[in-house]
Amino acid sequence: MLAEIKGLNEECGVFGVWGHDNAAQITYYGLHSLQHRGQEGAGIAVTDGEKVTVAKGLGLVTEVFGQGEINDLHGKAAIGHVRYATAGGGGYQNVQPLHFQSHSGSLALAHNGNLVNATALKHQLENQGSIFQTTSDTEVLAHLIKRSGYQTLKDQVKNALTMLKGAYAFLILTETEMLVALDPNGLRPLSIGRLGDAYVVVSETCALDVIGATYVRDVEPGELLIINDGGLTSERFTLNINRAICSMEYIYFSRPDSNIDGINIHSARKNLGRQMAIEAPVEADVVTGVPDSSISAAIGFAEQSGIPYELGLIKNRYVGRTFIQPSQELREQGVKMKLSPVRKIVEGKRVVMVDDSIVRGTTSRRIVNMLREAGATEVHVRISSPPIKNPCFYGIDTSTTEELIAANHTVEEIREMIGADSLVFLSEKGLVEAIDRPYEGKYRGQCMACFTGKYPTEIYQDTLHPHEKVTC
Amino acid sequence: MLAEIKGLNEECGVFGVWGHDNAAQITYYGLHSLQHRGQEGAGIAVTDGEKVTVAKGLGLVTEVFGQGEINDLHGKAAIGHVRYATAGGGGYQNVQPLHFQSHSGSLALAHNGNLVNATALKHQLENQGSIFQTTSDTEVLAHLIKRSGYQTLKDQVKNALTMLKGAYAFLILTETEMLVALDPNGLRPLSIGRLGDAYVVVSETCALDVIGATYVRDVEPGELLIINDGGLTSERFTLNINRAICSMEYIYFSRPDSNIDGINIHSARKNLGRQMAIEAPVEADVVTGVPDSSISAAIGFAEQSGIPYELGLIKNRYVGRTFIQPSQELREQGVKMKLSPVRKIVEGKRVVMVDDSIVRGTTSRRIVNMLREAGATEVHVRISSPPIKNPCFYGIDTSTTEELIAANHTVEEIREMIGADSLVFLSEKGLVEAIDRPYEGKYRGQCMACFTGKYPTEIYQDTLHPHEKVTC
Amino acid sequence: MLAEIKGLNEECGVFGVWGHDNAAQITYYGLHSLQHRGQEGAGIAVTDGEKVTVAKGLGLVTEVFGQGEINDLHGKAAIGHVRYATAGGGGYQNVQPLHFQSHSGSLALAHNGNLVNATALKHQLENQGSIFQTTSDTEVLAHLIKRSGYQTLKDQVKNALTMLKGAYAFLILTETEMLVALDPNGLRPLSIGRLGDAYVVVSETCALDVIGATYVRDVEPGELLIINDGGLTSERFTLNINRAICSMEYIYFSRPDSNIDGINIHSARKNLGRQMAIEAPVEADVVTGVPDSSISAAIGFAEQSGIPYELGLIKNRYVGRTFIQPSQELREQGVKMKLSPVRKIVEGKRVVMVDDSIVRGTTSRRIVNMLREAGATEVHVRISSPPIKNPCFYGIDTSTTEELIAANHTVEEIREMIGADSLVFLSEKGLVEAIDRPYEGKYRGQCMACFTGKYPTEIYQDTLHPHEKVTC
Amino acid sequence: MLAEIKGLNEECGVFGVWGHDNAAQITYYGLHSLQHRGQEGAGIAVTDGEKVTVAKGLGLVTEVFGQGEINDLHGKAAIGHVRYATAGGGGYQNVQPLHFQSHSGSLALAHNGNLVNATALKHQLENQGSIFQTTSDTEVLAHLIKRSGYQTLKDQVKNALTMLKGAYAFLILTETEMLVALDPNGLRPLSIGRLGDAYVVVSETCALDVIGATYVRDVEPGELLIINDGGLTSERFTLNINRAICSMEYIYFSRPDSNIDGINIHSARKNLGRQMAIEAPVEADVVTGVPDSSISAAIGFAEQSGIPYELGLIKNRYVGRTFIQPSQELREQGVKMKLSPVRKIVEGKRVVMVDDSIVRGTTSRRIVNMLREAGATEVHVRISSPPIKNPCFYGIDTSTTEELIAANHTVEEIREMIGADSLVFLSEKGLVEAIDRPYEGKYRGQCMACFTGKYPTEIYQDTLHPHEKVTC
Repeated sequence: MLAEIKGLNEECGVFGVWGHDNAAQITYYGLHSLQHRGQEGAGIAVTDGEKVTVAKGLGLVTEVFGQGEINDLHGKAAIGHVRYATAGGGGYQNVQPLHFQSHSGSLALAHNGNLVNATALKHQLENQGSIFQTTSDTEVLAHLIKRSGYQTLKDQVKNALTMLKGAYAFLILTETEMLVALDPNGLRPLSIGRLGDAYVVVSETCALDVIGATYVRDVEPGELLIINDGGLTSERFTLNINRAICSMEYIYFSRPDSNIDGINIHSARKNLGRQMAIEAPVEADVVTGVPDSSISAAIGFAEQSGIPYELGLIKNRYVGRTFIQPSQELREQGVKMKLSPVRKIVEGKRVVMVDDSIVRGTTSRRIVNMLREAGATEVHVRISSPPIKNPCFYGIDTSTTEELIAANHTVEEIREMIGADSLVFLSEKGLVEAIDRPYEGKYRGQCMACFTGKYPTEIYQDTLHPHEKVTC
Repeated sequence: MLAEIKGLNEECGVFGVWGHDNAAQITYYGLHSLQHRGQEGAGIAVTDGEKVTVAKGLGLVTEVFGQGEINDLHGKAAIGHVRYATAGGGGYQNVQPLHFQSHSGSLALAHNGNLVNATALKHQLENQGSIFQTTSDTEVLAHLIKRSGYQTLKDQVKNALTMLKGAYAFLILTETEMLVALDPNGLRPLSIGRLGDAYVVVSETCALDVIGATYVRDVEPGELLIINDGGLTSERFTLNINRAICSMEYIYFSRPDSNIDGINIHSARKNLGRQMAIEAPVEADVVTGVPDSSISAAIGFAEQSGIPYELGLIKNRYVGRTFIQPSQELREQGVKMKLSPVRKIVEGKRVVMVDDSIVRGTTSRRIVNMLREAGATEVHVRISSPPIKNPCFYGIDTSTTEELIAANHTVEEIREMIGADSLVFLSEKGLVEAIDRPYEGKYRGQCMACFTGKYPTEIYQDTLHPHEKVTC
Repeated sequence: MLAEIKGLNEECGVFGVWGHDNAAQITYYGLHSLQHRGQEGAGIAVTDGEKVTVAKGLGLVTEVFGQGEINDLHGKAAIGHVRYATAGGGGYQNVQPLHFQSHSGSLALAHNGNLVNATALKHQLENQGSIFQTTSDTEVLAHLIKRSGYQTLKDQVKNALTMLKGAYAFLILTETEMLVALDPNGLRPLSIGRLGDAYVVVSETCALDVIGATYVRDVEPGELLIINDGGLTSERFTLNINRAICSMEYIYFSRPDSNIDGINIHSARKNLGRQMAIEAPVEADVVTGVPDSSISAAIGFAEQSGIPYELGLIKNRYVGRTFIQPSQELREQGVKMKLSPVRKIVEGKRVVMVDDSIVRGTTSRRIVNMLREAGATEVHVRISSPPIKNPCFYGIDTSTTEELIAANHTVEEIREMIGADSLVFLSEKGLVEAIDRPYEGKYRGQCMACFTGKYPTEIYQDTLHPHEKVTC
Repeated sequence: MLAEIKGLNEECGVFGVWGHDNAAQITYYGLHSLQHRGQEGAGIAVTDGEKVTVAKGLGLVTEVFGQGEINDLHGKAAIGHVRYATAGGGGYQNVQPLHFQSHSGSLALAHNGNLVNATALKHQLENQGSIFQTTSDTEVLAHLIKRSGYQTLKDQVKNALTMLKGAYAFLILTETEMLVALDPNGLRPLSIGRLGDAYVVVSETCALDVIGATYVRDVEPGELLIINDGGLTSERFTLNINRAICSMEYIYFSRPDSNIDGINIHSARKNLGRQMAIEAPVEADVVTGVPDSSISAAIGFAEQSGIPYELGLIKNRYVGRTFIQPSQELREQGVKMKLSPVRKIVEGKRVVMVDDSIVRGTTSRRIVNMLREAGATEVHVRISSPPIKNPCFYGIDTSTTEELIAANHTVEEIREMIGADSLVFLSEKGLVEAIDRPYEGKYRGQCMACFTGKYPTEIYQDTLHPHEKVTC
């Protein structure tokens, strides 16, 4: 799931808890289990009923928070956020939860997703005299809430949400309540659990398991939860909903032990692998997956095809932030840092290499090449998703259209470019069926815009250059 | 495998290269691929023919070395070292390569292993007026060399080595040559490769693959290599050899893509798993391995038994040094940080949990318990090695006898303590056969002292408390 | 000038330059010479005509900025700020220049002083929907500017300034111009210089000398300067001016080599010392000053009285932030860290100890005691300012009234509390005359509110607890 | 006393205490008061009777030690060391106290001075098989002690000391005693004090004052003190003594509040200034000293001559390690960072600029130039010491002969090079008389080798390149 290998970056994970004596510590462990969703920054906001305190920083959860920092966060409710690793931009000011203080109280805000009309809204607000302190989309919500004119926070938030377009899972914390909102398409996953008497809201269910909480249900598209000492209330801020959960959560982003909509990710991926073996069988000696995200699909392919599954590629677990890239000369000598083939496994073998997606194609070419240098006689690439041809505007940092190899080349051209003996992508129909198999084919609604170009929301002017904005 | 989970720690990895323009950078990548052998500290010594320069520090290779540090290490030959993560002790002074300078030249020293008579030798040297600056065994060799009285370094080293007892793979670098020595039992792995015209010496062959070098052969027990601009010369410093490579290298320590003595580690582990399925079959629904080191054995067990292999346990990749341990209260609530079960996979299932070894038993108990809480109806534990009943004096930080669960309890008692429905360890015979399978049963010589108590060397007084020394 | 010794803290220094190729570097040196005005944080904002870039951090100028940071600040104009060392509060977000960005351009803001109606203005702005990101008074100006409704920045700023009450020297930087404003009382010093063709604006003239610039004139109370590539324009934003420069700038804060209103600080302090010798002569053997700020006054006293000046007290130059305070037990044993008496100088002598002010009296008591323990037979304390009886609302962190020893005790009581043989404060008349001496008694207008209680501005409700706000 | 300004560096200060419950904390404060003697590194060794513990690091005392580090140093006796700021070399390994551990006990060593035969001794020891771990002279003593063959530490040390030539003040700490030795010339200052029942040994008496201890006496040349729970015993390790205390301690290095041999440093410097005014009177308007070390001499000159003393030069207190040097271009524009003239004081005036010494002459030229640019009509330079014509081999980092301006130029040439209207150095006779004045001319014995070339010890081959060694 290394950003550097894939070129696909999830944008953020959120976690909230209400009513637990160790709210900050529970949030720390929850965020830690969501770390794969973002490694740039982490933050926790906590309320003790009187005051909201925020601590945050750049880096991993375990780098930002030590025992001292956690001990200083007193209170029975907390929200937390992990932020994805962006190359340049970003910086400390954009680390969430954002914290807005005024004489009438404070507001902490954590967001997973991306708004497509944020720039337009921001310009309007600035023209009315608002001053923005971050370059993050998320701040727009705070200004809309402050200016809504309604009396209660709930009404202010509802009013503000009706102006937002795009993908969002929001957690809002004040001194006395927590609000939770999911966009009308439910583009990002968001689930509810119980931990004793406490309520927990998480981006992925693996966070519930890790803290020992019980899964209750997924948050519904267009739903607004109000959680306070009186309990949890559910409302709808819009009735105009159209379920479209991001397919890439199943294919690539989420942790294998998470479930979305009751479907286990590992199982879904195994099904994707099985489906590939049905759609595109091949004569071969071993099946290997590109670690870590394609292991499940590779096992599925192996089981379906009867070809044995092997560890043909090893990932170095110690690749860190400060890693020195091999010079061009050494790269040509074959110096490998992140991934290496297991020569004894692939030498003299026909290899099926299962991967979950191809973005720019450079990584695939390198891996195919590695396998051949290690002695593979044939390399058959099977991708457990359809070709990515369109950018994502909902919080995934895909390349722009120019960089997407499948937007500009046929499958046969790509096969040649990556040097494979054969290359097959999963069909769109196969994707839907494999994921929905537990529902016996009753289609539940996925966003497949990156494959099909059919976006579930309007697309605004300012989404044309998604890379210039700081989303999430 | 995380030290915290297992309680078994490898002690160090070494890497050397002679005759490459980017000696320091090559060493950096080589050490990086050996990082699993030690995470406490890393160092590189380089010679430009005139001067030996050393850079080292506490932490991972990527933490200790940035581009600047590597650029400052000029020269065509280098040796490097990664050091294992010890709880207390250690510290900067013990990070290797150790560097000894005098008016007649300098000596850098990197060591993998443990000397059993170091304390005795050290006392004798101190009585003769030597001053030690580290608490590391390794320094003894330097003093023996300095005091040997012979004229050439080669003769000084040969003389010094005859006084050492125990396990050692030594790399020695001076301004003008590199010496390599392996103990008479060949307890630690050490291999030779070529990278163009350069010679490379590595603790594990994965380091050869990563830098694009070609494997030549393993270093022989009792062999002394002298490498300089005239090429590589091989000599024997003793004829009294008795091959006994550490079994745990196959079972647990080495990387799956490494080969020792021509045997691939992943394949050896699969064979161990297959052997378990033959020796101790069981009715069950899924096979799962404890990540990462037991995955191969689990796949072997699954293949042999026909029970499907699944990802029943997920390891969090972001567990770092500064990790906050859950408080007792939260641990009782079931907060899990390093490892979590996949509920959807194990719920309602009879699970075979394959692990490579049991040291204290606490981790096994926790994992069995996790699986049950996640809904497993039965948990059958299969360990791909015999019970560890004796301490290791050759560089593995096993617990003392008091802490080794198998030294003090029967298998049935252990089964009950860890809460498994069944527990079977691999037989000693099965271990030998599974690893030697590629040699068709021709026994090649393994050290199995931790299982059998039969140590291949004399054991000295000062090895009774191995934990008080800084080895490696 | 150590905050810890005195209990009086200046609040900030500002520096601006327009039209110099090395604007950021010049600002670095300028801020460095103003470091005595604030050690908590430092920042520089620079414009290249297209974009305003800001770098800042906690700590000294030399800690916040390395060569890399300075090199990254491209542009021909810059403003900078040093912030005073506050015990708690503050933090990174309040370090200046504050930077406000919007789609219509950006605004950087540096402020020396304190607004007395900031809280009232902030509440009104929040009620209108503004969100504040800092707890600093300074941000109020940015919001007033954004909401003023005028077309040009100059008019927006003029309008905003009319709403502010209190002490302020503001530097404002946009992509294309720099604005400079001084409050209608001119409470804080602010001077203009030229460096080649460039314009320079500084809190103290020492910054002009250090960068090799020529002094032009002091900024006038109520003056607004607009500096851009067309040159410097001066306007008035109010005609209701009433000059009242802070007396403590002469007595204590400013550097001895600075001049305010043409009067050199060292010379002014010598005059204060001379005046003391006239008003309160005493029979004694040596005169000594409390370093560093009272040295000039002590020399003046010595010259006027004919008693020799000696280094009777030595200050340790290496007292840093992280200094460990002696435990109570060691303090009783007489452990001294910051200041120590020179026994050979004071032993058996009648000592005149000249200091510039007394705030809480604890430091004075400690120094008198030190001198006695070192053998002084008599200690006569002469303070080169009148008793401080009232809090400052204009940017000096004096204690509240409860803590000010002179607000609650007679001079005779204070003498007894500090253990002196005699104690005399300078008269108010003497203060005015000594400073104005170069003007031959033509009173130029000083704020003496901390001595007299006569404040030059209205005092608002929210100034009653000055310590709860972050000023400057 | 800034190394950068002067080009003369003291080499180290030592502090020891025996018999105090807060030994480490007392040592911390003592070292802090000796910080002017060395800013590169600091260390403390402490014994609790059973074990010697050492903590040390690069940087100032307050940077190396926090409350935690001090709290971890348990014991009733301690020695400490501050090390001077060397440009390159050095590094962590050379920070003292050096700590030598063996199975028979440990030895911590702190040294002020420089051995002239260290290289020769080191070669001999290496030829006998010793391995050195530092590049510091000090380590030679440890090896000599270890190899002496005597039974008791006292005898081992006595034997070792007879082999050393040069300047040394040694503190040695074992688990059960502290040894103190001063070289036969007494080249470095070393004094004894009492703090309650505890014994204290310090490089300068200011450290006694700071911790509240009482001065007892100076250590004698050739004296060895043995301090343990039985009290203090004094022995002589040689009778061949010849007192020659370093003159530069009086002129430049020591703190003004210290006394050497009963003579106060501030008073001695005032006498040097007075003597200058007698030897080389001049018509002028103001006297100013180069801060900080020449202030006392300037006051003396002013008093003797009747010309008023003024603060004509201001030193920036915030010049730190990480300071960015002005580029050539900015330096030409007159950017000054460390020292600035006070224009209002020197403008239109004839200035006497008193400094304590001239090493390379570059600093003097810059200051004279500054004063002229600030408007001084004449600049008369008076140096309160004779010309430095010879290198120091006893622990002062003077330039080599090639760099010493006075070794290669006449006074008239130097005057022209630094641009002064007149330049006079103090006479050798004047120096002796001024310092010995309190003894009424009875010459007490000073080392004046840097002025006269008459070295009080033999000079060895290896002292020819003093800059290549790490002394102290």
